[in-house]
Amino acid sequence: MVATDNVQKTPPEEATFNLAAYLKERQKLCDTALDQAIPIIYPEKIYEAMRYSLLAGGKRVRPILCLATCEMIGGTIEMAMPTACAVEMIHTMSLIHDDLPAMDNDDYRRGKLTNHKVYGEDVAILAGDGLLALAFEFVAIQTPQSVNRELVLQVIARLGRALGAAGLVGGQVVDLESEGKSDISLETLNFIHQHKTAALLEACVVCGGIIAGASPEDVQRLTRYAENIGLAFQIIDDILDITSTQEQLGKTAGKDQKAQKVTYPSLWGLEESRSKAQELVQAACAELEPFGERAKSLQAIAHFIISRNN
Amino acid sequence: MVATDNVQKTPPEEATFNLAAYLKERQKLCDTALDQAIPIIYPEKIYEAMRYSLLAGGKRVRPILCLATCEMIGGTIEMAMPTACAVEMIHTMSLIHDDLPAMDNDDYRRGKLTNHKVYGEDVAILAGDGLLALAFEFVAIQTPQSVNRELVLQVIARLGRALGAAGLVGGQVVDLESEGKSDISLETLNFIHQHKTAALLEACVVCGGIIAGASPEDVQRLTRYAENIGLAFQIIDDILDITSTQEQLGKTAGKDQKAQKVTYPSLWGLEESRSKAQELVQAACAELEPFGERAKSLQAIAHFIISRNN
Repeated sequence: MVATDNVQKTPPEEATFNLAAYLKERQKLCDTALDQAIPIIYPEKIYEAMRYSLLAGGKRVRPILCLATCEMIGGTIEMAMPTACAVEMIHTMSLIHDDLPAMDNDDYRRGKLTNHKVYGEDVAILAGDGLLALAFEFVAIQTPQSVNRELVLQVIARLGRALGAAGLVGGQVVDLESEGKSDISLETLNFIHQHKTAALLEACVVCGGIIAGASPEDVQRLTRYAENIGLAFQIIDDILDITSTQEQLGKTAGKDQKAQKVTYPSLWGLEESRSKAQELVQAACAELEPFGERAKSLQAIAHFIISRNN
Repeated sequence: MVATDNVQKTPPEEATFNLAAYLKERQKLCDTALDQAIPIIYPEKIYEAMRYSLLAGGKRVRPILCLATCEMIGGTIEMAMPTACAVEMIHTMSLIHDDLPAMDNDDYRRGKLTNHKVYGEDVAILAGDGLLALAFEFVAIQTPQSVNRELVLQVIARLGRALGAAGLVGGQVVDLESEGKSDISLETLNFIHQHKTAALLEACVVCGGIIAGASPEDVQRLTRYAENIGLAFQIIDDILDITSTQEQLGKTAGKDQKAQKVTYPSLWGLEESRSKAQELVQAACAELEPFGERAKSLQAIAHFIISRNN
């Protein structure tokens, strides 16, 4: 009897929600849509270079967040898929440009040679530009007519902002300026990650919500959820850079320490960084409580972010 | 009497239209709008780098074409200004990336040091990315509500296409592949310029028309006008590279010959290139005849394109 009681007390969503299967299925949907988004036509080299990095087998956390939020608010996968593809294109473009010799000068990414190591620096720069252009074109053309046109424009504006000087690009500039300096303040570190990592994650979540017609209050909750998982995501990234091998990460490990980079673990230590990430994920999940059962996928993804090992 | 007859036969638009004053006034409007589009806030360096190239005093041919087409079709300057700014941001971004050491490796542009010579390669790459992101955000946010939202999405889609692998980026890839080869066919040369130069010029013209509600037939006429001036523009560029000094051009002169690049003058000779450009401009102007008097600015701009000396 006691055992039966315990089983009944388990919240049904936790008992029935299989995150691994969910992520696998969504990843496959995203991979298929991304594959179809870019043909190989003349001049083949640029399309191949764009596809090389875009289809290099990322976890698709960003597009999956976008789709999951759209569904939570009451929209469909079809409504959000073009935006989901766009955020992955933008993310991939930022990786291609970040890896260039003039930037972080990285040879490996997602377990493969970086774009410029395969196609040359010139084509890698252009492949990034091409992905970026396609991201906006794709949202504008492919988003179904069932999504209000004004909302599609809001999505495009938010993607532009998340990517530009007020987002990714701004964060990367401060990151480059901070390199080799060991006296970076927590404020500066937060600025870097809020812009380099969290801004695009926030855009994924909020744009997914907007497409489904989220209310201003919903958008605020989604924003706070995204801010929290964004920071947690970065803390875990910093921890993994220390504790993982290149094989596990698919990219160069131990880079931060080698570059004497200020990171969350370098400021707080590994243990406190881990518990801070844990707190952030709990706060993120709490924001979604008003959505009840429908929030289960976004809550599970939040927990996944801090349990991942690559 | 004969003299009076001759005066009366002069078409009124040519007698009264002062192109120099028109261009100067429009250039100033564009410069002001571009200046206001980018603030200088933290992190200042990226905003300064974006402004450095964007406000380096180009002729603003592209945004002026966009505004002029919008007015010809019946729209206002206010309706098209965000798109006009966006095309100049996209054009500037393409110049910044093209000038990089990994690409054309140029030190001067618009009479000033290139972006990477002033801010470093890393910041120059990011400044281009930032301008690109802003271009799309700007159109989405700033286009007045009087423009149908579906049309704004069409504009964004066309800008993305003109910039991406099916436009500028694709043209640049083929251009890079053709470097140092002296057996480039006219077909390949046309591909390069249709994509590297004409695609964005076409987007300027067609998007200006779309914003004003151009009919599909209007869009076809505008497309043919733009294709013709786009090719004329490139032929003149090739001619100026041979006949001008660096001082006149504001960028390195004689580059094509030095790089043994196949150009229109290298295929046709200077004289035939000039008369071909002349023919293209006449064909462009003929496309606009149905618009009568209202086409005078676009027709004058077409003539300006082949009479310019920088």
